[in-house]
Amino acid sequence: MIEHHLKTILEKTLQELSIDCVIFGFHAGELKVLLLRWKATDGWSLPGGRIYKDESADNAATRILLERTGLSEIFLHQFHTFGDTNRNKYFTEAELVQKLEATFGSNFLAQLVDKRVVSIGYFALVEFDQVQATPDWYTDECRWWGISEVPPLLFDHNEMIERALKALRQQIRNQPVGYNLLPEKFTMPELQRLYETILDKQFDRRNFQKLLMSYDILEKLEEKRIGVANKSPFLYRFDKQKYEAAMANGVSFSM
Amino acid sequence: MIEHHLKTILEKTLQELSIDCVIFGFHAGELKVLLLRWKATDGWSLPGGRIYKDESADNAATRILLERTGLSEIFLHQFHTFGDTNRNKYFTEAELVQKLEATFGSNFLAQLVDKRVVSIGYFALVEFDQVQATPDWYTDECRWWGISEVPPLLFDHNEMIERALKALRQQIRNQPVGYNLLPEKFTMPELQRLYETILDKQFDRRNFQKLLMSYDILEKLEEKRIGVANKSPFLYRFDKQKYEAAMANGVSFSM
Repeated sequence: MIEHHLKTILEKTLQELSIDCVIFGFHAGELKVLLLRWKATDGWSLPGGRIYKDESADNAATRILLERTGLSEIFLHQFHTFGDTNRNKYFTEAELVQKLEATFGSNFLAQLVDKRVVSIGYFALVEFDQVQATPDWYTDECRWWGISEVPPLLFDHNEMIERALKALRQQIRNQPVGYNLLPEKFTMPELQRLYETILDKQFDRRNFQKLLMSYDILEKLEEKRIGVANKSPFLYRFDKQKYEAAMANGVSFSM
Repeated sequence: MIEHHLKTILEKTLQELSIDCVIFGFHAGELKVLLLRWKATDGWSLPGGRIYKDESADNAATRILLERTGLSEIFLHQFHTFGDTNRNKYFTEAELVQKLEATFGSNFLAQLVDKRVVSIGYFALVEFDQVQATPDWYTDECRWWGISEVPPLLFDHNEMIERALKALRQQIRNQPVGYNLLPEKFTMPELQRLYETILDKQFDRRNFQKLLMSYDILEKLEEKRIGVANKSPFLYRFDKQKYEAAMANGVSFSM
């Protein structure tokens, strides 16, 4: 099985390029990122993959995201290409090399991992509850990690998450964020918590609501959230058409 | 000589990747972009090149920029990676193929140009007067083109310019722009004209000055511009340290 995957990659995909995906989800008031643990090791990495010779980079990223999360048609943004020469630096560590060779055979490292590869980074914003996380053929486990609890990762993947987060913060200042990250219906405090989490900053409740309502992308529903301690807050949802127009034209978020 | 360049590229550089540079200059109140005309053809393209096997993508971009403009230590920003499968679509046009084969031999197209290559796009902001534009080994001529007069280009280079301009516009809303694009000393109307040109929009003179001064990056000099028709406007220059701090921390330009 491993030989089959290796053969496919060597014959059918670009050899000097890969895709890595920083998949952000929002759950219990926390921004999380989906990571994979490599088979029989403690080494974690971002989900990623190769580009078929006849496949565009964007299509490859969409396919990889679908394979790992079961989701299509979600927000996917190319944020940076990582072109340093030593991105594979961890694959000289004796213990890791030993474990990988025992599991995958020696060709795996030599022909696939321990080579210079330039990687195109994409970030995705996904609705946490909708994700069916599925490990890759070379990984044992998928797990969501809180953004502040991410362990040291293989390759330059910690730097990738840093840069993706920076790009997301840049984006949130110029475009609305929330569609895909939140469930269909949400409360204003939930939306505010999302903004606060991404920007790592607290906002005044009233000013936040006023600014977000001024974008004219939110629809206030008649329903209220039931079962919340103090009072029952109203539910909102995004007007998808207006949301998309705001994505295209830009909005200014500065608080 | 051509054989030598071809051999070097095939043996010493990455084969599936290239770099392309959108070099913006500002001259006579107009935003311009540096283009190259391919030898013995009417085909224009952006300056670009390959990445050596032991060279990072950023270093390759810096080197290519230095080779084409004579400038180092200038603002260079990776803005997008172009990964479509048909980027080389123009190299099937009979007339172009004929001319290129006559000049470069048939290997040039088959081994170098008419293949799938993914390109990392960088944009640079340069001081127009400082540039010593130098053609590449496969080009006859370097020329500055006004951004609105760019001809149809080889590869997907028109799309690259569009995207670079979009990235520059995004940047100008979050970071100061002007250092590198303007001469050391400049007037407030010249700075305003730069912003207006990039954003393709007119601003009120007083509001513009007020906003730009609020960034605390400009130093008003005692000198005035002499020889201007009506009155002699004061000269300004950027305080480099404060400018760099504003680049790192961000500023909000919304008018």
